[in-house]
Amino acid sequence: MKLIIDCFGGDKSPAANIEGALLALENHADMSLVLTGDEEVIREELKKHSYDGERIEIVHAPDVITGEDKPTDAIRLKRESSMMKAISLLRTDKEIAGMVTTGATGALIAAATLRIGRIRGIRRPAFCPILPTMTGDIVGVCDSGANVDVTAEMLLQQAIIGSAYLKYAYGKDRPRVALLNIGVESEKGDNLRKEAYGLLRDCVSINFVGNMESRDLLSGKYDLVVCDGFSGNVLCKATEGTAMELLKKLKEQIYSKTKYKLGAMLQKQMFADFKDMMNYQNYGGSVLLGCEKTIVKGHGSSNATAVKVCIDQAYRMSGGAMNDEIGAALKALEPKE
Amino acid sequence: MKLIIDCFGGDKSPAANIEGALLALENHADMSLVLTGDEEVIREELKKHSYDGERIEIVHAPDVITGEDKPTDAIRLKRESSMMKAISLLRTDKEIAGMVTTGATGALIAAATLRIGRIRGIRRPAFCPILPTMTGDIVGVCDSGANVDVTAEMLLQQAIIGSAYLKYAYGKDRPRVALLNIGVESEKGDNLRKEAYGLLRDCVSINFVGNMESRDLLSGKYDLVVCDGFSGNVLCKATEGTAMELLKKLKEQIYSKTKYKLGAMLQKQMFADFKDMMNYQNYGGSVLLGCEKTIVKGHGSSNATAVKVCIDQAYRMSGGAMNDEIGAALKALEPKE
Repeated sequence: MKLIIDCFGGDKSPAANIEGALLALENHADMSLVLTGDEEVIREELKKHSYDGERIEIVHAPDVITGEDKPTDAIRLKRESSMMKAISLLRTDKEIAGMVTTGATGALIAAATLRIGRIRGIRRPAFCPILPTMTGDIVGVCDSGANVDVTAEMLLQQAIIGSAYLKYAYGKDRPRVALLNIGVESEKGDNLRKEAYGLLRDCVSINFVGNMESRDLLSGKYDLVVCDGFSGNVLCKATEGTAMELLKKLKEQIYSKTKYKLGAMLQKQMFADFKDMMNYQNYGGSVLLGCEKTIVKGHGSSNATAVKVCIDQAYRMSGGAMNDEIGAALKALEPKE
Repeated sequence: MKLIIDCFGGDKSPAANIEGALLALENHADMSLVLTGDEEVIREELKKHSYDGERIEIVHAPDVITGEDKPTDAIRLKRESSMMKAISLLRTDKEIAGMVTTGATGALIAAATLRIGRIRGIRRPAFCPILPTMTGDIVGVCDSGANVDVTAEMLLQQAIIGSAYLKYAYGKDRPRVALLNIGVESEKGDNLRKEAYGLLRDCVSINFVGNMESRDLLSGKYDLVVCDGFSGNVLCKATEGTAMELLKKLKEQIYSKTKYKLGAMLQKQMFADFKDMMNYQNYGGSVLLGCEKTIVKGHGSSNATAVKVCIDQAYRMSGGAMNDEIGAALKALEPKE
């Protein structure tokens, strides 16, 4: 199994990406990695660690894509960037099964859509981030922003690729799939939701359990939520944002009075556990599903552990079985002759 | 000022609605109220309180609309319900300026849309709930679910009616209006968002400050967020749901160990303040804006205080000045001759 790691573009790049890559390498004896980025800088960074040099390859890419680059410009003008080099090798090198990056999302979606082939039958790739639920489990949201305009058929495809992903990357058998809607009743929502509801209900390859209201995302009742990229983006960011704002406010309150601070000292472990549970770095990156090859997008602020988790994720998804299962599910939807 | 109160349909109806009505009556000497619902039950309930009988009128309506009633059936078959009677009087009685209900949302939207006239020029009425921010302020979300399919022009109208609402009901001068989007840059989002961005930017009657990502709803940087009813619904419910799930989880954690419980005893006042800040009952109902008359929808679980706050809200909005201001802003948008 060969994976390619974009070593630049994140807030803690390249140190975190390289350390994360070496941590992942230790975990999987049959894995080898290609690192893209400024070769000299990568070599300097590698010197700080001991590792199996036989399983590491460096591809020089002096340029870096930043959040300021327009996606279309990034593709056109920054061919020598660590991300575009990685995309280009992912496209051409048959041996490379997947890629991990912590770089700019917009440029990644644009490049992946244009350069990396889609699984046969898939209309558009979709993002699927993973969030921790309050029951200690996880929930995937597909799509979280790759496609703002979708059709009912695309929502069904997102259910299929998301289900396969949760099975192969997280060991969930027949994940419970819900459709994001403004009410739980089957007739709720606009025409898109009503049409999608029928398609999801009738698809035997997935385990559709009905509509979900956004308030229930963290309830642990669902494994995968299917939605258009606009409302999926609103859902994920509102959930994360509220959690962050609330914890910030709580901290502020605790620090406002000595009595509260004393109380918090007794709860030190509790807050540490809480923070750990809410820490996205533990749950892996957001995966761009539907492509022929694996693409994992780690958070921009990923540390070494987060990068390692992303690589582990890519490893689990890249065996071929996941895409075969998606292919079979799509084939089953084709009209019988 | 005469307002009509639907006394049934909420979880704590009619007791909470009637007590809330009498509390509001004490607050506003120039206000009189019409109560709809089963007259005998209302009279029994009124006996428990002392009040100015001259300013209370009862309109008998033996039937009640429940969450199980389909909106269209509710309008057609439950004409004798407390909500439909209230809507019908609001429509015909020139003296009645507004209405407060804690009953079913779907039936209310359908009845209000069909029976109550809109402000001249307004395409569709829109819901505007109020949420508490982490800075101790409030933020309105318009629309939160009345219209799932909208146009850019409708989003602009929502900005105008929402701004006037925040001015008259909450004393906010030139409220900061944001457009809900998947990124803050002006070119973000689908065609609807791009078109709406231009209209909002060019409208002199409102104080448009740009796009907002859902994670910033509680930041205190915005007074009003404009969005389609689908993503607005996702936004509000995700925000409320996450806050509730998080506090529930925190409570569960605290109760899991004696040490944590001891800590929480020191923080008793802090958690009480926190709960109070998050309590929607303090912030009033969700208002259906754009109608010729005021319609306030209190939460189904509203207690007497929440009902009182809703009536206070309706009182502040119903003087005529708010709708005049909306009319003027709409007129300013008309092409010059």
